[in-house]
Amino acid sequence: MAETAYQTLSQTWARMYRLAHLHSIAGWDSAAMMPPKGNQARASAMAEMEALLHRMATEPHLKGLIDAAKGESLDDWSRANLREIERDWHLSNALPESLVQAQSLAGARCEHAWRTQRHANDWPGFLENFREVLRLSREEAQRRADATGLAPYDALLDKFEPGVTSADVDRLFGEVQQWLPDLVRQVRERQSRDAVVKPQGPFPKAAQRALSLDVMQRLGFDFDAGRLDESSHPFSGGVPEDTRLTTRYHEDNFVQSLMGTIHETGHARYEQNLPRQWLGQPVAHARSMGLHESQSLSFEMQLGMNPGFVGLLAPLLDQHFAAQPAFEPENLRKLLTRVEPGLIRVDADELTYPAHVIVRYRIERALIAGDAQAEDIPALWDEAMQSLLGLGTQGNFKDGCMQDTHWSDGAFGYFPCYTLGAMYAAQWFAAMRRAVPDLDARIANGDFKALFDWLREHIWSQGSRWTTTELVQRARGEVLNTRHFRAHLEARYLT
Amino acid sequence: MAETAYQTLSQTWARMYRLAHLHSIAGWDSAAMMPPKGNQARASAMAEMEALLHRMATEPHLKGLIDAAKGESLDDWSRANLREIERDWHLSNALPESLVQAQSLAGARCEHAWRTQRHANDWPGFLENFREVLRLSREEAQRRADATGLAPYDALLDKFEPGVTSADVDRLFGEVQQWLPDLVRQVRERQSRDAVVKPQGPFPKAAQRALSLDVMQRLGFDFDAGRLDESSHPFSGGVPEDTRLTTRYHEDNFVQSLMGTIHETGHARYEQNLPRQWLGQPVAHARSMGLHESQSLSFEMQLGMNPGFVGLLAPLLDQHFAAQPAFEPENLRKLLTRVEPGLIRVDADELTYPAHVIVRYRIERALIAGDAQAEDIPALWDEAMQSLLGLGTQGNFKDGCMQDTHWSDGAFGYFPCYTLGAMYAAQWFAAMRRAVPDLDARIANGDFKALFDWLREHIWSQGSRWTTTELVQRARGEVLNTRHFRAHLEARYLT
Repeated sequence: MAETAYQTLSQTWARMYRLAHLHSIAGWDSAAMMPPKGNQARASAMAEMEALLHRMATEPHLKGLIDAAKGESLDDWSRANLREIERDWHLSNALPESLVQAQSLAGARCEHAWRTQRHANDWPGFLENFREVLRLSREEAQRRADATGLAPYDALLDKFEPGVTSADVDRLFGEVQQWLPDLVRQVRERQSRDAVVKPQGPFPKAAQRALSLDVMQRLGFDFDAGRLDESSHPFSGGVPEDTRLTTRYHEDNFVQSLMGTIHETGHARYEQNLPRQWLGQPVAHARSMGLHESQSLSFEMQLGMNPGFVGLLAPLLDQHFAAQPAFEPENLRKLLTRVEPGLIRVDADELTYPAHVIVRYRIERALIAGDAQAEDIPALWDEAMQSLLGLGTQGNFKDGCMQDTHWSDGAFGYFPCYTLGAMYAAQWFAAMRRAVPDLDARIANGDFKALFDWLREHIWSQGSRWTTTELVQRARGEVLNTRHFRAHLEARYLT
Repeated sequence: MAETAYQTLSQTWARMYRLAHLHSIAGWDSAAMMPPKGNQARASAMAEMEALLHRMATEPHLKGLIDAAKGESLDDWSRANLREIERDWHLSNALPESLVQAQSLAGARCEHAWRTQRHANDWPGFLENFREVLRLSREEAQRRADATGLAPYDALLDKFEPGVTSADVDRLFGEVQQWLPDLVRQVRERQSRDAVVKPQGPFPKAAQRALSLDVMQRLGFDFDAGRLDESSHPFSGGVPEDTRLTTRYHEDNFVQSLMGTIHETGHARYEQNLPRQWLGQPVAHARSMGLHESQSLSFEMQLGMNPGFVGLLAPLLDQHFAAQPAFEPENLRKLLTRVEPGLIRVDADELTYPAHVIVRYRIERALIAGDAQAEDIPALWDEAMQSLLGLGTQGNFKDGCMQDTHWSDGAFGYFPCYTLGAMYAAQWFAAMRRAVPDLDARIANGDFKALFDWLREHIWSQGSRWTTTELVQRARGEVLNTRHFRAHLEARYLT
């Protein structure tokens, strides 16, 4: 039985953790396993659980317990846990239960319809559900703004990347915008002289899956504590004790599932290596979504496209498919680092990816601020894509503003995390190379121990022990700085 | 908002239904998808949900609402729903939350360890966990006995087969025991003259799965509202909106997965055809476990081994595997109806199956009454198997008392339902043949419409609208009578 206020709080959060486990597995199942007619009952069930968890986190006596616990004697981890409990409490108490439930239902309806509407290029159909999602997200943003004193959009951003505001994002993205277009131009100019042999498909699903499992194994994924399945939008879900990755296979192109799996494995290893003795408590959660993306991008971009790693991939491709000239390491490296502006974010190369994020960041900020309406999205999208990547999307909703699942589910404020993650990842590898000067030689030998040890020590095992700023400073000795991202891109694409 | 006591009750049960959805999907996932290291967190999560649902069903104000609702004006379905709500209330309120949670944890621990202990023939290891499961089940039985006025074992039986007592089971099983041994003897004598060609494997898993899906399709399973997967102990789970079947494949024997899938499809069609407009309310639940088994056995035994149906299976086997002499219809029929006493219940033929049930019924009744202890099970098992089937199991725990999952999970009182189900199924088919005299000719032509229509009208669509006795009488004009079961077996095996 609980003796102190802190113990009572910690038991309450442990109960919510156990119930959220069921919600999380059901969420994975919805995307990876559920047949279509299950959707309505599933959406109701998940909304019921969200409302219940919200009710538990807004019990009136919790505030008093939090205040009392602050006066109790706590060790460092418990103190940090109390900070995260309070943060969680603030996040939950900003919204009434009715709004949480309405958002869950509207999001599930819109997201489910989107799965077919996207392929049908059915923007008017999507708009019908989406208007309500946006209306509810604006209400959420306003309520969170009232509770935190942040601007409405910043209050949404704070859910995913605590401590970061749109002023920070503007500065960081502003720096990137200064050098990125010219860098893309230079790289495309250089690459125009390269001859790249294209892989010749088909690549059977079963062989792609076997390759994915093989690579995950080499990347240290624990198959006794997780799975790999298929879904139309790949993600890393489940719970830290049982991490569920998904990917999708196209038989004409193995690169997408391969690199996607490497990406999700980065997310999974973070989850699988969170501090075990604290699992069930908020301090054991991953620090932020930007930090999470920094792990997936450390795997996909920093490691996965490292020339030494590409040299290891080549024989695996020969083994799982039939050998062909395109799999030759130098050709494979050129293939993976090929820069080409395109319409689809998830297919974008490392260099043009930030432009996709900036398009979305601009639009979602305007949507939440009320400076733009749902109906305006296609025109804004087309304009931003034209200016940043020189590509038009008029009338092409499915490869334009309907390509992502995020907004359909009300996840505004998430997109910046992808590019923040890419920046963090570049910073981690700069730190690692300082600590382990022969890191690249080790990677080329298939020895990832130093790499994983560094990530485990500085990121994974720390959970939410520190604020993001503290974590970054402890790992690197400085706050987030775009120069590492730039240096990484220049080293990879211009030398 | 609720206006009447009945409406408040109905909303409360709808909320529990939605939360139980997540529990049910997580349960399916535990058996079909979950990697081993997920078990502890999953067991804790499911126990938390069970405790929560129990708390909701034992809220002190519910009793007053039930009493008030009885005085309200209700249509027939709502009146039946109130009866089922009250039954549910009694089932939940007989047990304290601490016992529910302890049972969930002990059951999950014992069941999970059983999965490996069974194969290792590790009875002492199993016993260590099982003692606690039995202790808690005895406590449950005593508390239910106190609440209902039934004997302890009858109070457990009542959970699965409301209205049936061990006196009824003794009478029904007693009748069967009078004619069954002699019938088995006669049939074996007849069959000793038959030459049966054995199928030659291997039968690849993928082909077995394709065959299973093909047969499920023909049996009307709705794949937009359910799935087929694998688990070590086949079952039908999920929710009525999304029914999850499992099977297991042995490459040397396709019959087990084929007939197992047909069996589970019977369960699934019951669930998929419960009254849609009442889903979420107790009146829409399947009537009882015996009735549920009557559906799976209507599919597996009554239909699946019907000579006309076997004639349809033969070309499917040729198609999914390579044609071979064993697949010839008359040979296939002989193969499926071959009677041979064996150790394993789930592999037992239709004729010796009741003996397996009687063995378990005798032992579990003694265990719950305190007339036998956990340690006594192997000796009791060996003795009963010797007397009923002439087979010894000394030292062979894995093919003896450790073969089933039921007891490991504390499901005492379930086993009789299998044979009650077989009796009901025989009774349904007798009723159908009276209503549709050319039923067998239709089956032989692959026309199952009249069959499914009858089951839908009399069983599936009725949910828990009637008590079991009322349902049986309405469908057949008489209560459960073993003479239909006997007539069916004699017609199939002696003519």
